Amino acid sequence: MVSRVVFGRGSFNQLSDILSPKRLNVKAPFIYLVDDVFKGNAWLTSRISLAYADQVIFISADEEPKTSQVDQLVEQIILSHKDRPSGIIGIGGGTILDLAKAVAIMLTNPGESKDYQGWDLVKTPAIYHVGVPTISGTGAEVSRTTVLTGPEKKLGINSDYTPFDQVILDPELTKDVPKDQWFFTGMDCYIHCVESLKGTYLNAFSQSYGEKAYDLCKEIFIDGDGSKEELQDKLMMASWHGGMSIAYSQVGAAHAMSYGLGYLLGTKHGIGNCIVFDHLEEFYPEGVALFKEMKEKHNIEIPQGICSQLSDDEFDIMIDVALGLEPLWENAIGKNWKKTITREKLKALYQKM
Amino acid sequence: MVSRVVFGRGSFNQLSDILSPKRLNVKAPFIYLVDDVFKGNAWLTSRISLAYADQVIFISADEEPKTSQVDQLVEQIILSHKDRPSGIIGIGGGTILDLAKAVAIMLTNPGESKDYQGWDLVKTPAIYHVGVPTISGTGAEVSRTTVLTGPEKKLGINSDYTPFDQVILDPELTKDVPKDQWFFTGMDCYIHCVESLKGTYLNAFSQSYGEKAYDLCKEIFIDGDGSKEELQDKLMMASWHGGMSIAYSQVGAAHAMSYGLGYLLGTKHGIGNCIVFDHLEEFYPEGVALFKEMKEKHNIEIPQGICSQLSDDEFDIMIDVALGLEPLWENAIGKNWKKTITREKLKALYQKM
Repeated sequence: MVSRVVFGRGSFNQLSDILSPKRLNVKAPFIYLVDDVFKGNAWLTSRISLAYADQVIFISADEEPKTSQVDQLVEQIILSHKDRPSGIIGIGGGTILDLAKAVAIMLTNPGESKDYQGWDLVKTPAIYHVGVPTISGTGAEVSRTTVLTGPEKKLGINSDYTPFDQVILDPELTKDVPKDQWFFTGMDCYIHCVESLKGTYLNAFSQSYGEKAYDLCKEIFIDGDGSKEELQDKLMMASWHGGMSIAYSQVGAAHAMSYGLGYLLGTKHGIGNCIVFDHLEEFYPEGVALFKEMKEKHNIEIPQGICSQLSDDEFDIMIDVALGLEPLWENAIGKNWKKTITREKLKALYQKM
Repeated sequence: MVSRVVFGRGSFNQLSDILSPKRLNVKAPFIYLVDDVFKGNAWLTSRISLAYADQVIFISADEEPKTSQVDQLVEQIILSHKDRPSGIIGIGGGTILDLAKAVAIMLTNPGESKDYQGWDLVKTPAIYHVGVPTISGTGAEVSRTTVLTGPEKKLGINSDYTPFDQVILDPELTKDVPKDQWFFTGMDCYIHCVESLKGTYLNAFSQSYGEKAYDLCKEIFIDGDGSKEELQDKLMMASWHGGMSIAYSQVGAAHAMSYGLGYLLGTKHGIGNCIVFDHLEEFYPEGVALFKEMKEKHNIEIPQGICSQLSDDEFDIMIDVALGLEPLWENAIGKNWKKTITREKLKALYQKM
């Protein structure tokens, strides 16, 4: 779990105070990985105070994070600095936060990041890493995974060393998120809750977190219960609780199929989940019905026909990725999932998307 | 925050596996502080596997934990072992968990534990410490405090080093808690929620945790919603969420006055809270009404007249302790609390108890 958290509007101002005791020496810089939507945005960047060899690296979140990108960032950091960094600070959405976690791990572990995709393969503690979410929903700020697209699979580096040492939850940082992205990323949280609460891995720990996040999602996306600021605060907490819920259970069918889309087509995770979830009434009848209500209420168009031009080989690639995520299917369907989740079944579902 | 948590019925069986990688060397023992209600209870104690100089110390939880008790335990541990322990494991209720946290801190920090009662006075990280709650409600398993009665005050050691490094949440360990104790300790959680949710320090983080714990308390104590096992699971999670809620806000009037009772009369915390809360309609009208409903439903008798024989000097002692807890009153009433919370006011309230 995350060791330290601060919460509050304006809490991002505490960043320097939080980091300064963690500086190892003047040659060991803090490296800030920042979503490039904030490039030139002094409201945010002026609060990152650089000293000695500290460095800001702006990164586009247009594409899902890749293992090759992690390895390249690690190499760049090692070559540019005399000492191992004092810390990695990720400021952005799920993509940037996952990159920050993966870079912090790969600075202390040998080999390539693709070697660590899986469960508990990381042997050496990561360097100190801090997460500052600027969009709410993914749960990346709290999870023990960092989902990466590798040469062979889209899969997380799941380990005890993955979670951030420190998280700063400042809902004010989410104020300029465009509406579509707000919805798609918020739905990532909502779908986490449905998958966790309807899963066979559910326990009272996950359930209590999942129920709270689910209730908050209803307050936000159905009732619109609160001021703009209150809704930002609530969505940041929904993301947190939803992330905690899946950390102690598992996601399900929507995430498994969404990873297939992401791997083949590069579909961003939030929108990919929505494209998939829209067609999963069979697995999650109530959850999908409420999702359709939310979509309608906020006039959100889900992209259609993204699989209409795909070849059989391409369907096979997506199906391989989706079927490879065995724990997700076992959670969604139960131990005998292979009886119902066949290649034909998944192909028929993908063909609707 | 707690770094690692496992949850589940039977998860206590993982204790040895969790501890073994943390052993520093054969001379550095694990010290188990265990509630003495488990003395001779092989169902629990047989799962504590001792090696080398590991030691179990049974401790009575009949009295609230004291700074002198912490100092004496620390001395006993230092004198009995060649090396500093590999870890301290607390197995019990709030009293034992608070003692374990305090002992872990005082093994690395000089002086006496009374010197650290307050906020952020601990300078050196504690040794590795693990919490295993065997009764639910106090939130001690998750909090950053350890409440101790000292020579001058009843106040916690609140610090970043106080929280456990590892918590094992095994609801099965609570199966033999006597009914009265189940109720009084559960009400500690319920009262945390009311004080947090009605407090001026509330924010969206505390609110989301407090609301979940409050809802769980209603399911448990009003609706009786679930099997005996499910209710145990839920109360363990309510305690956790309630503890998280106050960690990021503060408790209020009931805790302030209950500390007065505890300091003067040694009243145990859970029952003390109930004695006080029963008379706080003025501050928490809905919360107290629901509390009375819960009390009635479970045929619980709250002790009456415990202050009827006290002298004026004794009332003054309790009032001094209660008024000294300024952040609690500020949370309960607001910045101008001193206008309404006078010595006369508190005396009149204590006289009813």
